[in-house]
Amino acid sequence: MADRKEGFMDQAAIILVDPQLGENIGAAARVMGNFGLSDLRLVAPRDGWPNPAADTMSAGAIPEGVVRVTVFDTLEAAIADLDYLLATTARPRGMEKPVFDASEGIAALKREGSKPGVLFGAERFGLPNEAVVLADAILTYPVNPGFASLNLGMAVGVFAHAWAADKGVPEAFSGVDEPAPREDLVGMFEHLEDELERAGYFFPPEKKGVMTQNIRNAFTRGRWTSQEVRTFRGVLKALTLGRGKARIRREP
Amino acid sequence: MADRKEGFMDQAAIILVDPQLGENIGAAARVMGNFGLSDLRLVAPRDGWPNPAADTMSAGAIPEGVVRVTVFDTLEAAIADLDYLLATTARPRGMEKPVFDASEGIAALKREGSKPGVLFGAERFGLPNEAVVLADAILTYPVNPGFASLNLGMAVGVFAHAWAADKGVPEAFSGVDEPAPREDLVGMFEHLEDELERAGYFFPPEKKGVMTQNIRNAFTRGRWTSQEVRTFRGVLKALTLGRGKARIRREP
Repeated sequence: MADRKEGFMDQAAIILVDPQLGENIGAAARVMGNFGLSDLRLVAPRDGWPNPAADTMSAGAIPEGVVRVTVFDTLEAAIADLDYLLATTARPRGMEKPVFDASEGIAALKREGSKPGVLFGAERFGLPNEAVVLADAILTYPVNPGFASLNLGMAVGVFAHAWAADKGVPEAFSGVDEPAPREDLVGMFEHLEDELERAGYFFPPEKKGVMTQNIRNAFTRGRWTSQEVRTFRGVLKALTLGRGKARIRREP
Repeated sequence: MADRKEGFMDQAAIILVDPQLGENIGAAARVMGNFGLSDLRLVAPRDGWPNPAADTMSAGAIPEGVVRVTVFDTLEAAIADLDYLLATTARPRGMEKPVFDASEGIAALKREGSKPGVLFGAERFGLPNEAVVLADAILTYPVNPGFASLNLGMAVGVFAHAWAADKGVPEAFSGVDEPAPREDLVGMFEHLEDELERAGYFFPPEKKGVMTQNIRNAFTRGRWTSQEVRTFRGVLKALTLGRGKARIRREP
């Protein structure tokens, strides 16, 4: 069972029912590829198949086979092998069916289906009731009621991202450095405060404590790495070089 | 403070830096309107402004003012009034900065910013490093490393949905009925089992217990409403009407 569960991540089918514009089919394919979904099913696409506009908008996802497109004459054929289905809709259908937002819907797909799928309706009208009725549950997004109509590709994109969302931040971003140990930071503070002292910055002298505290606090909040601490000490040296010479002349 | 927090829901600015295609600007505006975001800022759009392709693709969001578009010559001017910024990027920049996925990033925007914003780069190259460096943190999506390049409008759409995701299922879907009380369900079972008994379905008779149990179990799982129970009892009546007559003839 464990490897079957693993496989879920790439196994949700996206079914576009009566899609009209090739551009939207292509956009859906592209964003499926972006988020690791590869099974795109078209029921009776208006302009036939293949569709050059779909190929172009897919940015390679369709012609390069990142996403596999299968065309069916009927919805029944397109969903024949699937065992758990969500129907996306922006408007209630007066049907007795669980209604999920994206995160609930995806949890249900991963939990209930060994071969799940999601139905998306045509640009103008959405899914027909005959399609919604064949789904186990409804998936809907928290849209602005005054401006509720999502582009079809966008509706697929929102789903595709939500499907992959539990993967979190990609591995490639994991190389960032840790914040410096406090020792490095304190060394930098002492360097800075020493130079400020020599520059006559702490005035009146009885304020030195609180002035130091405020500066240390501001710099601590940045959570600098050891490299950034070294960089700033270089900055300090550069800034104080001329000043140092001036001071040497002023205080012989 | 409470009303300020409330206002957050509509207050994240979306900043497109050097966007190229009007179609993408329009798609971004449309999906912002879908999810209740209204502050769209363009830094030096390649084709100038206004842009008819953007108006068309926005499906009314731009011409009808669902989304307010402001154009700036420089990034610095576009972000001048903002106090917390995320930079979206698909590739690591070797910069020491927190890296968030969508849900972490949005939590940070809502927590850290009283006027937050999100930067999106141009179609071909993404954000320049000079822009990323001005952001508090990086926002990245869990993309397929082999097919990582999101359409610009889609990148905004994924963010916009995630921003609204804590709203859950819209109010309009809340009118669904509760499952029937068990009394209604048991009445229906007795009706069904009575008819099956008369039809000679329970054979051999010692299996009746387990056969009944299996049927009751299957029907219980559907969580029918009282209306659906009544409908099925009507179905039962219709199905048994002819059969009842036949039985009367067979058992005088």
